[in-house]
Amino acid sequence: MDVAIYDTTLRDGSQGEGLSFTIDDKLKIAKKLDYLGIAYIEGGWPGSNPKDLEFFRQAAELELQHAKITAFSATRKPGLSIKADSNIKAVLESGVSVAAIFGKSWDFHVARALETTLDENLRMIKDSISYLKDKGLEVIFDAEHFFDGYKNNRDYALEVLAAAAEAGADCLVLCDTNGGTMPWEAADIVEQVKLHNTIQLGVHAHNDSGCAVANTLMAVKHGCVHIQGTMNGYGERCGNVDLCTVIPGLELKMGKKTLPAGNLKRLTEVSRYISEIANMPHHNNQPYVGHGAFAHKGGIHVSAMLKDSLTYEHIDPEEVGNHRRVLVSELSGLSNLLYKAREFNIDVNEYDAETRKVIRQIKELENQGFQFEGAEASMELLLRKAFRQYEEYFKLKNLKIILEKNEDGEMTSEAMIKISIDDKIVHTAAEGDGPVNALDNSLRKALNEVFPQIEEMHLADYKVRVLDGSKATAARVRVLIESGDKGNKWSTVGVSENIIEASWQALADSINYQLMKKNMEK
Amino acid sequence: MDVAIYDTTLRDGSQGEGLSFTIDDKLKIAKKLDYLGIAYIEGGWPGSNPKDLEFFRQAAELELQHAKITAFSATRKPGLSIKADSNIKAVLESGVSVAAIFGKSWDFHVARALETTLDENLRMIKDSISYLKDKGLEVIFDAEHFFDGYKNNRDYALEVLAAAAEAGADCLVLCDTNGGTMPWEAADIVEQVKLHNTIQLGVHAHNDSGCAVANTLMAVKHGCVHIQGTMNGYGERCGNVDLCTVIPGLELKMGKKTLPAGNLKRLTEVSRYISEIANMPHHNNQPYVGHGAFAHKGGIHVSAMLKDSLTYEHIDPEEVGNHRRVLVSELSGLSNLLYKAREFNIDVNEYDAETRKVIRQIKELENQGFQFEGAEASMELLLRKAFRQYEEYFKLKNLKIILEKNEDGEMTSEAMIKISIDDKIVHTAAEGDGPVNALDNSLRKALNEVFPQIEEMHLADYKVRVLDGSKATAARVRVLIESGDKGNKWSTVGVSENIIEASWQALADSINYQLMKKNMEK
Repeated sequence: MDVAIYDTTLRDGSQGEGLSFTIDDKLKIAKKLDYLGIAYIEGGWPGSNPKDLEFFRQAAELELQHAKITAFSATRKPGLSIKADSNIKAVLESGVSVAAIFGKSWDFHVARALETTLDENLRMIKDSISYLKDKGLEVIFDAEHFFDGYKNNRDYALEVLAAAAEAGADCLVLCDTNGGTMPWEAADIVEQVKLHNTIQLGVHAHNDSGCAVANTLMAVKHGCVHIQGTMNGYGERCGNVDLCTVIPGLELKMGKKTLPAGNLKRLTEVSRYISEIANMPHHNNQPYVGHGAFAHKGGIHVSAMLKDSLTYEHIDPEEVGNHRRVLVSELSGLSNLLYKAREFNIDVNEYDAETRKVIRQIKELENQGFQFEGAEASMELLLRKAFRQYEEYFKLKNLKIILEKNEDGEMTSEAMIKISIDDKIVHTAAEGDGPVNALDNSLRKALNEVFPQIEEMHLADYKVRVLDGSKATAARVRVLIESGDKGNKWSTVGVSENIIEASWQALADSINYQLMKKNMEK
Repeated sequence: MDVAIYDTTLRDGSQGEGLSFTIDDKLKIAKKLDYLGIAYIEGGWPGSNPKDLEFFRQAAELELQHAKITAFSATRKPGLSIKADSNIKAVLESGVSVAAIFGKSWDFHVARALETTLDENLRMIKDSISYLKDKGLEVIFDAEHFFDGYKNNRDYALEVLAAAAEAGADCLVLCDTNGGTMPWEAADIVEQVKLHNTIQLGVHAHNDSGCAVANTLMAVKHGCVHIQGTMNGYGERCGNVDLCTVIPGLELKMGKKTLPAGNLKRLTEVSRYISEIANMPHHNNQPYVGHGAFAHKGGIHVSAMLKDSLTYEHIDPEEVGNHRRVLVSELSGLSNLLYKAREFNIDVNEYDAETRKVIRQIKELENQGFQFEGAEASMELLLRKAFRQYEEYFKLKNLKIILEKNEDGEMTSEAMIKISIDDKIVHTAAEGDGPVNALDNSLRKALNEVFPQIEEMHLADYKVRVLDGSKATAARVRVLIESGDKGNKWSTVGVSENIIEASWQALADSINYQLMKKNMEK
């Protein structure tokens, strides 16, 4: 690779407002980043958060193809022996082979925030790096506030880098921690630092001035070979630099290899997957990967686009796995569908009117907010139904849910359900923790008599996403349900203004899918 | 002014997905931009849209202090006499004193999109500009696709500028229409163009590579004195350059005067006002003006901030009319809480048993899944309640919600609610799109009699997060509600296994918060 990509979504990204990852979320994201081909994944700060240690324990069992998991830590504390420092100790306990150690490079911060001397700060840096190097780790040194430090006290900032280099650091990362640096400053300062160092340089930018992407690209242009950032630009205040913008910039604009060949096409998928896990809206106008990044509205643009897409697009959206949204080329939609149908062993003819009808139906559902990427079982049912390979196993006749909250704040949820299975009518009721659980319980109770095999099946995950939050409590809601039985896992989706209706759709699909699969096994 | 700011929110901005301004919206925005002190406001393209002509008629009656309203148009059509061109005619009819005329500067576009000759394109540019100059207008020439044109056929791109200059254009604007330009290219190309021109240069950037802000600042650094962009970066695909980021960059980082003295402080207010009119979410992490642009979450950051705010802020938020926020979350501790309490004018002593009790309570709630960093109003209510500065305005006596889905799949949602306000009992019912909307409608209906001021309040966003998805439909759910009334915004939170209960908590907090604030105003 020409430039090493260092992802800190799980550490610096998690400082973003509204973000809070469970260990399971973090493991899922790490796997997805590895699938993209990221070189380094910063898993957390084991010394600051006991939850992070558990992540490192479980992450060690992931079978990653590309990425090294790294641990973040401060340098040792002032006046303390390195062996007594709990942060450094936790890095070793985390079992990683790479550590990122941050130290102060702005004299003002040494005095005001650390409240120690400039010399002691240098010793803290040297001790921490050489100790970890002695233990056999690769050590990346993050020079916090480097650009501000350089502007304020150039000599000291350079002394900090020299100390880290002398202690054996493998890479010196210049951080624009407050995000106030201008792109020409980034260029000049990297050029100056190069005159004083022979070790690999990296850059870590924040977006407080709206220049994080430009500063990162500038730094690479002037010699940095390691960049730190987060997926979708998550991070404190205005966020870290967005790797989803920087990576295609490096690859497509600057011709730098950053990912395994062919993997850039996975970028859009990975970006959207991570926003789902983070439960953050995926910005429509996000460069390269946004749903609207290649959406054309202006009449002039559209007619020119119909003549030649290069007229109003700076790259081919396919290169990053995104797609154009005006030239809704039936062909690209078709090829996806043909591919999917073949996967399900459905014989589809592309010249068939039936096939075109299914494509229109899928497009219409996607417009309503259905997302089949995360719900392949729903997609399979839809295709099989269209090609008459499947019929629902049960029909809903009536559903009633009653919720009551009394003066003491106690809440009860009850569901009454009437379904038909062939000619048989089942009418029953159940309680639950909330309306969806009551619905789930009553449906299972009703089906259990005729289809005892659903006992093997359980719901493994339930996700709710409000699609157009600005409509507040009348907004549309997407429910994703992940289900499992012995050895299998499948996901289904439902969309409605009514969360109960959306849940019903996803739940009914999930159960129908399991019944269909059981039937096919026979 | 050192740099003229040319706002095109009403024209290029309105090409953004999901944006659609009425004439009244446009007039409101124009007035607000003038209040900020913007030099030019592009009102629309009168030739392309009859609605725009009506806007220009009404805009002429606005008593603007700073801004000139401008009209946008293409050059005349190929092979047509200038007097017969309906676009140019409409510019004159619009009654503006300034016109922005765009012409092609990329040879590829002349051939592929315009389908005319390179020479005719030059004549179209000359004719259009000199005709409008003869009529006494100030004429700004937008060289569409200039950067791509320059890279493709440098001589022709420069010939286009020379033609516009010769015809009398007052300013030549270099457009990065497809947004694919890198910052060093922007710098180099502006430098080159300067060698061939003595007329004022401007820049018009799009954000497809995430470099629009950097490209604009770079262009100014290398000699441009006119910049075009939109408020909040609205615009086609990835948007135009965001003036809310560029203006403070120019003023605070580069020392360029762009607004009347003192007006930069109005920026945050104007940015949020326009997002309200546009009915677009205001991005939390937008540089300078975002609600979270100066929000601090990491414990280390917060303790350093308490010592000196410069440690983790690149500018003083007051300079752009924004303010600092400290987020209380699991990542931080006592120092965040003390900071928050001081913000609410609550006198808290860190050695007090009461204070420690509140911290324990917050930690306990956070363990249950409450997240106060995204719900400051709930946090404020909790603190004020703990320190006996607030009591709830109403009490729930009984709530019942009935959902029914019939055989045809139709679903109805009804809520019955009984609340007490002091000694008064209100008992009412309402329908809604789903259970939460029915609850919301019924609660508002019940409160409206006694507290008509809640009519001013609306719910702006509603988010649902399933906390432990592996418990599937019995999982705990966190609901975040964002509410607003004239000029204010606040967020509240609720957590429960029951989505209705969680929604109730967030909704009740939201309304109590509004009533408390209204009371405090009196």
